Amino acid sequence: MASGWFYLSCMVLGSLGSMCILFTAYWMQYWRGGFAWDGTVLMFNWHPVLMVAGMVVLYGAASLVYRLPSSWVGPRLPWKVLHAALHLLAFTCTVVGLIAVFRFHNHSRIAHLYSLHSWLGITTVVLFACQWFLGFAVFLLPWASQWLRSLLKPLHVFFGACILSLSITSVISGVNEKLFFVLKNATKPYSSLPGEAVFANSTGLLVVAFGLLVLYVLLASSWKRPDPGALTDRQVWLLSPILGGVRPGVEKDSRRTCTLLRRLTL
Amino acid sequence: MASGWFYLSCMVLGSLGSMCILFTAYWMQYWRGGFAWDGTVLMFNWHPVLMVAGMVVLYGAASLVYRLPSSWVGPRLPWKVLHAALHLLAFTCTVVGLIAVFRFHNHSRIAHLYSLHSWLGITTVVLFACQWFLGFAVFLLPWASQWLRSLLKPLHVFFGACILSLSITSVISGVNEKLFFVLKNATKPYSSLPGEAVFANSTGLLVVAFGLLVLYVLLASSWKRPDPGALTDRQVWLLSPILGGVRPGVEKDSRRTCTLLRRLTL
Repeated sequence: MASGWFYLSCMVLGSLGSMCILFTAYWMQYWRGGFAWDGTVLMFNWHPVLMVAGMVVLYGAASLVYRLPSSWVGPRLPWKVLHAALHLLAFTCTVVGLIAVFRFHNHSRIAHLYSLHSWLGITTVVLFACQWFLGFAVFLLPWASQWLRSLLKPLHVFFGACILSLSITSVISGVNEKLFFVLKNATKPYSSLPGEAVFANSTGLLVVAFGLLVLYVLLASSWKRPDPGALTDRQVWLLSPILGGVRPGVEKDSRRTCTLLRRLTL
Repeated sequence: MASGWFYLSCMVLGSLGSMCILFTAYWMQYWRGGFAWDGTVLMFNWHPVLMVAGMVVLYGAASLVYRLPSSWVGPRLPWKVLHAALHLLAFTCTVVGLIAVFRFHNHSRIAHLYSLHSWLGITTVVLFACQWFLGFAVFLLPWASQWLRSLLKPLHVFFGACILSLSITSVISGVNEKLFFVLKNATKPYSSLPGEAVFANSTGLLVVAFGLLVLYVLLASSWKRPDPGALTDRQVWLLSPILGGVRPGVEKDSRRTCTLLRRLTL
């Protein structure tokens, strides 16, 4: 049952995340003229797609690496490297997304960074960069003591969740702003809810749903890497496909699995 | 030290929260013509003030009731009543804020609920109403079993934090939208960052800072009502002004305080 819920959540997250990117790309392709890399508004169209892909979907996936039961056993280093690499990929998408909007502004002589959307967005990207470098320095490089890591870990998780929340806030204000910019046609304004408005509003709500599900799995679920010796029956159950069919309730087997896991995670 | 941090956080939260409301009110009064209750745009001006006051500041204060050390001792019921009453006050502000914008739309023949800001805002208010009624039914009325309450408590806390995050997202998209509506003047557009734009953008960031600090105290700090028999030295320290000067480290006194608190919180 617990295992079922976990894999159902993974499926829902994967589907929602893919839909967020595809829907944003479809909005830009179908209603906003598609993509180019030439400084025109077609270059701007990369901005929403890359920010949703980088700051929300890839960022969310990277955050959840330690919630996969297969990450609970064995050495932590490969999972740390995957966590950092996925976040770096997310950050790269974000930077390319920023280049797209800055070059479009330069090309069309539009001022940079004046709206609240842009103020919040750039603050979020700066926080993301600080979080990545601090995480890399403290949790990946070998110099930091266990004491320092234990002290900073709750803050790292909290700021990780904050950055995702701020990214969603930036996306929502950005979609809202874009729709007010482009749906000014007197016969079909935004307020008459044409097809594009309904589609883009729904895409915004989809991004919110994806973000909240990521935050739930990250902060509130019991799918956390257990501390050595602190495995629950539920966690043993989730690990059973990896360790070969041990089921909780069969006390002897469960105990043997726990002992094995303690050894593996130490 | 721990006690100092707690009371410093309370002071910062109180100041930030008051500034959020006062700055929003000042923006409406100084740049948008002030307030009235007559269906005109002056009636709309109540909307941002009441939404920031209700959905962010009062909501945040109500969420943190159980983080006050004085709430850790003695019966829970008075604190539950205070938690529910403050949330009800927040909800009342929100409803009056919604009436202000709906009556302004009716008066000026503007369509209701078309922008992403309004879709997300109304979803947040509906979630808030559901959360309040579910919380009232399960945690305040006496029928629910301890098992059901323990099962729902993490979800109640998680959705409480989600609603605050969504409120902040709605506020940011609303401030952004309002500035694009009103700063269309060809000589001083939003993109030239006139005084009003800088002031309102900064107010938006202030709301974000307040919200993140509330979420930190709610989710990541150690200022949680301890389970009976699970008091840390830090929590004993925080409680010492209430119980009369007992300090951790003085083992005998600390033990006596813990025993006393166990009795009080059971």
